[in-house]
Amino acid sequence: MTDQLSSTQITSALVRLSNWSLTQDGLAITRTFVFSNFVDAFGFMTRVALVAEKMNHHPEWSNVYKTVDVRLTTHSANGLTELDVKLAEKMDMLA
Amino acid sequence: MTDQLSSTQITSALVRLSNWSLTQDGLAITRTFVFSNFVDAFGFMTRVALVAEKMNHHPEWSNVYKTVDVRLTTHSANGLTELDVKLAEKMDMLA
Amino acid sequence: MTDQLSSTQITSALVRLSNWSLTQDGLAITRTFVFSNFVDAFGFMTRVALVAEKMNHHPEWSNVYKTVDVRLTTHSANGLTELDVKLAEKMDMLA
Amino acid sequence: MTDQLSSTQITSALVRLSNWSLTQDGLAITRTFVFSNFVDAFGFMTRVALVAEKMNHHPEWSNVYKTVDVRLTTHSANGLTELDVKLAEKMDMLA
Repeated sequence: MTDQLSSTQITSALVRLSNWSLTQDGLAITRTFVFSNFVDAFGFMTRVALVAEKMNHHPEWSNVYKTVDVRLTTHSANGLTELDVKLAEKMDMLA
Repeated sequence: MTDQLSSTQITSALVRLSNWSLTQDGLAITRTFVFSNFVDAFGFMTRVALVAEKMNHHPEWSNVYKTVDVRLTTHSANGLTELDVKLAEKMDMLA
Repeated sequence: MTDQLSSTQITSALVRLSNWSLTQDGLAITRTFVFSNFVDAFGFMTRVALVAEKMNHHPEWSNVYKTVDVRLTTHSANGLTELDVKLAEKMDMLA
Repeated sequence: MTDQLSSTQITSALVRLSNWSLTQDGLAITRTFVFSNFVDAFGFMTRVALVAEKMNHHPEWSNVYKTVDVRLTTHSANGLTELDVKLAEKMDMLA
C-alpha cells in the first residue's frame, strides 16, 4: 500500500504542481483544465484514462463541454499519496 | 433553437425514462450509471461522447472509477428540451 | 450525395494536403501519423473518431503501437470527394 | 521476457479461442469483429486500448466503420506468446 504524504511532502509537491490546489481538508488536490472544445477535452480524458488504468489509480473528474475538473486523492490511504502526485504530473504533461 | 419542454411533456418523458430523476428546480434530469470497472465505465463514456458530439448536445457528467453521474439540461433554453430526452434515451441504450 | 472530385480539384487539394499521397488508382489519399507512444496515438484516434462520427464520414485506418495509417475515400462516390479533403484537413490539425 | 509458445501450446490455446485463426506462418492470430455501427466499434476499441496499455501489449488492428480487424503477435519474441492469448481472451470478453 502507498503511504499518506506528510504535510512537508505535500507542500513540496505543490511547489512543482503549481496549477493544483489543496482542498481545505488537506485530503485531495484539484485542478480545472479548459480546452478549446469538447473534442479536445475528451481526447485529453482518453489519454488520461489510459495512463490512470495502467497506474491502477483513477481520477475523480467531471466534464462540462470543454472543461474538465479533476480531484485526486487515494481512498485506500484516506488522503494524498505519491500516486496522486504522479498522476497530477502526467495530467499536466498531457494537457 | 430548441424549445423548453412543458411540465406535461416532462412528465410524459419521465415515464419512459424510468431510471432518470427530475432535479428539484425542474431544470435538469439526472441518472447514475454503475459499471463493473473503470474500463467499462470509460468505454460507455466514449460511446456517449461520440453520440453527444454528433448531436451537438453534451452531458454534464462526473466519473469516479466505475460510476458515471449524468446531468442533462439545455443551457441555451434554460431548462429541459427534446435534446435532453433524446440523449437520455441514447445513454440508456448504450449502458 | 457528394460528387467525386475532378483531377484538377484533387491536384489542387493535394497542394494544401502536403503530407498526404494519392493512391495509384487515384481513388484515395493516405497518410501515416507517428506519435510518441500508444497513449498519444490513441488519443489522436479518439479525437478523430469524434470528428468523423459528426461528419458521418469515417476513415479507414490501422494502428500499430504509436503509428496510425490512414486511407480516406468516399465509398458512395467510388472515389475522392470534398468530405475526404475536409477530414484530412481536420486530421492534420488534430495531429 | 515472455517465451514463444510451442506448437502444442498454440493448438491448445486455439481450442479456447475458437473465433481466432492462426496465420499461415504461425507467427500471429487474427480475428475480425463486426459491430452494429462505428460508435460500438470505437467503444470496443477504447476498452481494448485501456486493457492493452495496462498489459503493455498492444494489438495490430484496423478499423473500417463497424469492422475491426485484429492481429496479435509478440514482436520481442518473434511469434506468439502467452500475452497474445491473454489479450485475445480479453478482447473476446469485451466484444
